[in-house]
Amino acid sequence: MPSLYSTNMRLKFPVLAISLEILTIILFGVFVTYDKIDAHHGPQNSSHSNEEPDFSALYPVFQDVHVMIFIGFGFLMTFLKRYSFSSVGLNMLLAAFGLQWGMLMQGLWHMHHGKIQVNIYSMINADFSTATVLISFGAVLGKTSPVQLLIMTILEITIFAMNEHLVVEILQASDVGASMVIHAFGAYFGLAVARMLYRPGLSNGHENDGSVYHSDLFAMIGTIFLWMFWPSFNSAIAESPQEQYTAVVNTYLSLAACVLSAYAISSLVEKKGKLDMVHIQNATLAGGVAVGTCADMAIGPYGAMLIGLTAGIISTVGFKFLTPVFSSKLGIQDTCGVHNLHGMPGILGGIAGIIAVALGAKSGNVVMQVAALASSVGIAIVGGAVTGLIMKLPFLGQPPDQNCFDDAVYWEVPEEEEEHEENMTHGDHSKNKAEP
Amino acid sequence: MPSLYSTNMRLKFPVLAISLEILTIILFGVFVTYDKIDAHHGPQNSSHSNEEPDFSALYPVFQDVHVMIFIGFGFLMTFLKRYSFSSVGLNMLLAAFGLQWGMLMQGLWHMHHGKIQVNIYSMINADFSTATVLISFGAVLGKTSPVQLLIMTILEITIFAMNEHLVVEILQASDVGASMVIHAFGAYFGLAVARMLYRPGLSNGHENDGSVYHSDLFAMIGTIFLWMFWPSFNSAIAESPQEQYTAVVNTYLSLAACVLSAYAISSLVEKKGKLDMVHIQNATLAGGVAVGTCADMAIGPYGAMLIGLTAGIISTVGFKFLTPVFSSKLGIQDTCGVHNLHGMPGILGGIAGIIAVALGAKSGNVVMQVAALASSVGIAIVGGAVTGLIMKLPFLGQPPDQNCFDDAVYWEVPEEEEEHEENMTHGDHSKNKAEP
Amino acid sequence: MPSLYSTNMRLKFPVLAISLEILTIILFGVFVTYDKIDAHHGPQNSSHSNEEPDFSALYPVFQDVHVMIFIGFGFLMTFLKRYSFSSVGLNMLLAAFGLQWGMLMQGLWHMHHGKIQVNIYSMINADFSTATVLISFGAVLGKTSPVQLLIMTILEITIFAMNEHLVVEILQASDVGASMVIHAFGAYFGLAVARMLYRPGLSNGHENDGSVYHSDLFAMIGTIFLWMFWPSFNSAIAESPQEQYTAVVNTYLSLAACVLSAYAISSLVEKKGKLDMVHIQNATLAGGVAVGTCADMAIGPYGAMLIGLTAGIISTVGFKFLTPVFSSKLGIQDTCGVHNLHGMPGILGGIAGIIAVALGAKSGNVVMQVAALASSVGIAIVGGAVTGLIMKLPFLGQPPDQNCFDDAVYWEVPEEEEEHEENMTHGDHSKNKAEP
Repeated sequence: MPSLYSTNMRLKFPVLAISLEILTIILFGVFVTYDKIDAHHGPQNSSHSNEEPDFSALYPVFQDVHVMIFIGFGFLMTFLKRYSFSSVGLNMLLAAFGLQWGMLMQGLWHMHHGKIQVNIYSMINADFSTATVLISFGAVLGKTSPVQLLIMTILEITIFAMNEHLVVEILQASDVGASMVIHAFGAYFGLAVARMLYRPGLSNGHENDGSVYHSDLFAMIGTIFLWMFWPSFNSAIAESPQEQYTAVVNTYLSLAACVLSAYAISSLVEKKGKLDMVHIQNATLAGGVAVGTCADMAIGPYGAMLIGLTAGIISTVGFKFLTPVFSSKLGIQDTCGVHNLHGMPGILGGIAGIIAVALGAKSGNVVMQVAALASSVGIAIVGGAVTGLIMKLPFLGQPPDQNCFDDAVYWEVPEEEEEHEENMTHGDHSKNKAEP
Repeated sequence: MPSLYSTNMRLKFPVLAISLEILTIILFGVFVTYDKIDAHHGPQNSSHSNEEPDFSALYPVFQDVHVMIFIGFGFLMTFLKRYSFSSVGLNMLLAAFGLQWGMLMQGLWHMHHGKIQVNIYSMINADFSTATVLISFGAVLGKTSPVQLLIMTILEITIFAMNEHLVVEILQASDVGASMVIHAFGAYFGLAVARMLYRPGLSNGHENDGSVYHSDLFAMIGTIFLWMFWPSFNSAIAESPQEQYTAVVNTYLSLAACVLSAYAISSLVEKKGKLDMVHIQNATLAGGVAVGTCADMAIGPYGAMLIGLTAGIISTVGFKFLTPVFSSKLGIQDTCGVHNLHGMPGILGGIAGIIAVALGAKSGNVVMQVAALASSVGIAIVGGAVTGLIMKLPFLGQPPDQNCFDDAVYWEVPEEEEEHEENMTHGDHSKNKAEP
Repeated sequence: MPSLYSTNMRLKFPVLAISLEILTIILFGVFVTYDKIDAHHGPQNSSHSNEEPDFSALYPVFQDVHVMIFIGFGFLMTFLKRYSFSSVGLNMLLAAFGLQWGMLMQGLWHMHHGKIQVNIYSMINADFSTATVLISFGAVLGKTSPVQLLIMTILEITIFAMNEHLVVEILQASDVGASMVIHAFGAYFGLAVARMLYRPGLSNGHENDGSVYHSDLFAMIGTIFLWMFWPSFNSAIAESPQEQYTAVVNTYLSLAACVLSAYAISSLVEKKGKLDMVHIQNATLAGGVAVGTCADMAIGPYGAMLIGLTAGIISTVGFKFLTPVFSSKLGIQDTCGVHNLHGMPGILGGIAGIIAVALGAKSGNVVMQVAALASSVGIAIVGGAVTGLIMKLPFLGQPPDQNCFDDAVYWEVPEEEEEHEENMTHGDHSKNKAEP
């Protein structure tokens, strides 16, 4: 079907990628400058002035977040048997472009004398902005071209930066770990895109939409790095050392409790009581999402654990019972189940934040917290729907149904492995093509 | 054999896991509070007062230890061809529960006004306490159910916390890198459990008790992260910056020397001089174990290297010649060979510490060092034997011999891979079950 | 061919490895001592005195570099279908020995009262010195024995330390991220060795000189850890906090821009516009190499991005068009294409440094920058050629052509996997050897 599905990327992808990069470099040339680091920097100074970023103290935290973005998200999505190159490779592409675009889009709202200064906070925030795109990428994984995904990156980060500015600066809502502005936003944006790109031809499943033994293990690399470094994610931009400490402890404990409930429910909902890798890879992380908004609040260690326990239950139940319904009834084919890992736990996080502020765990305004949650979900759905419509434009190289979840559309794939896969699928009927 | 081997976990595992987590949350609600972080924190303050933890300076070290626990131990055990889900997955479960339980059990001995304060040291120590369980897990890998392992976690960490209190607070022995209280303790505890769970049916080996090419590579991820971050493990709770520095340097050099001797002996003991992945994955780490007790002492860089060199030799020789004897003569089936990686090197570390204190490398009492080593090994053996007896209770879901080392007992395993494995084992006799 | 190719390592490898380690320990005993850490250390002191290393602030940066050396280089080279044990395993061996040897060779040029002091800078520099060997290892990957490689390690690090002393101390040239003294040096040293070890028998390729699906994924683990932590590599030994910050920002942005150009050119040069894993695994890193020399200079964020953009283009084009020519016309069989990842981008980095100094981005001497680049490339080529001649000595265990790129020569390889590979290659003609 060459007219509908022109998946050959030879001209359109290189031209788009290079053009975007050159445009970005020009914008950096005009707007972006270095920051000045105080020679007497150090942790003790950060209490004197919150505006002076402490580079060397936050650099290890930035690197933890960096690992989450590039290894964590990248390998988490390698679970598909024939789509691992795309998962880790396109993740890298989108994140590398997204962090540049995010630095510009977020910086536009905080210019000093017409310039955007690069410092450790802007680097952390740039990585954060890519997280929204990578969450949405999970919803459409296997069904989109690199060109479509680059367009989604530009639009989503631009809209994300506006919503974040609204939530943080205008509403002045608390969302230190970004349950609302990143996780709920990224999930509902991606689900809206997936709805627009609905493929009836995939409604009965696809033979490549599943894992093999070692692809599940690669995915666990992603899961565990995300799980371990989530305390860094939730505490990175906390305002004081005390709040940074609180965010680390709350996230650490929420995630630990979440593991127990995710494992328990995974076993409970399967006929023979067996554990399901989909749940283990994803639902164990829901505690990090759900504790995000109130991570820096004095909710008590047991409070953080209760949030994690709840998130693990909700997320696992969602994977088991809700994802099939989304696909069959709502026309939302959510490849990675981002609704269960980021959507519902993100909303749970927003609600927990509302309750925590209402109970006085941190000074704040309950109405503004509610508005922040509504804004994040609402703007995401509208923005995702519009973005999805644009992504449907026919010349953007979307793969046909039968080639979904298959690296071979956009990647050179080693021959041996194709044969090997075939061998696995067709048993002794296979013929060796390389050596006939 | 449904009566003896009721491996269906559907009720017993979820009920146990959720009950334990709720109990833990209640105990956290009663006993655990946040700590206060001094706004003027920083390295320079830690010399004024040892009781004031320096959160931001130790947080990267904590994360290194975290990586060792979750990636290091988890992937090191993925070497088995069909048991990688369990290795990395149950490692995560036991560690996530263990760190919560460890924080309680260790905190009980150091309460302030009836409360346990969470700080960076208690987080590091909680991770440490899980290490004992993960070492013991290696001895019984492939032969135990998740329910049995959760019970082992509770008992082992409780006993570990008592022995650690005895060694550190009562005997006041030095053991900064925990050669004795973690490595020797975890190994001999696990070996005692393995002795209690002896399976005559496995005395001639098991077809799944081996690796495939890529499972060995996954295991190397674990090995290398353990190897790299071991200096953080051995220095994390050192008392002063100078001792922290010394522990890093000694561990770094011991491990480097250990690699050379492990590789050399691996080649020497194989008929054709070939390297054996079992040795490379494990014996290269023995230098980190063996230098643990005296890591913060002025043993000289060459002293650390001599310890590492010796540990690499002992460990490789143990894997080659001792493990088969343990299995055939002593009835101890040590799946991962923890006696060679943690047991003997742990005792070597204890002895090195005794000699170092005797030679004045650190002020201390030789008798107390001897008592600490004896206590750690003795309490481990007794505690492990009792724990093993409890784990033998028939309703705990232990797998039958023929299903050992097989994820499929407790996990949903992708069909293609099962077929693939079958294809590999039975050649062209295989039939494709999924597409008959 | 037992006379020419005595690949049995049983005596020669263990004797060499143990002898080298014992020699090294003796030299450490004579020359190496601990450093003293100021109790009032901390970031604020590093501005008072550059000579006083700040251990705890640089330790996380050291660990990032450590991850690049052991995980980054090790897994990057696992892409070969049957040579992954050697890639990650011999990488570990060479790096573990190399860091000890490097500490001695570099320390000889900076002795205090006849002693070499171990501090955080000497640990970082020791890791750096191993990087040269690991780059050269990439050029000869699959075609050399462990004994040959240990000899290369000794010679290359010795020569590297001389050139580095010449460039940094005598010429006083700037090369903070070591584009010249590590990357160009390591690449041209390795290419000269590869030229000396030219194998006409491999001129038509080798069936094992390629990847399978999952070996390419293991390689991506290496790629992404290298990519993420490269800012630490380029900033680790910067002189002031401001220059450290600048080096981080420039490297981060150069790498981000490089990803876009590497992906674009990879798609552009393939017939059907598909992405090629070889380019993605390697060329995305060229931006880190090329920005090395001027990483700490005020070249502007856009300047760093332009360097990265250019490096990604040059590197990808080199992999596509230059590597085949090197092999067919020059007799240089560069297994990993280190000329494209380290050679040309290293020279680009040297040239960028010359231009930046000429434009006043940092005070310095253009002539000395030119001399540093010439010295690094020239000494590497001569040193590599001599080293290659020594490595050709017949008793060093070099594998015959047909056994190149095959772990089974020097490693015990799991039987199932061999059969599996055979199964993949010969289809249903295979016989099961294990169960006849």
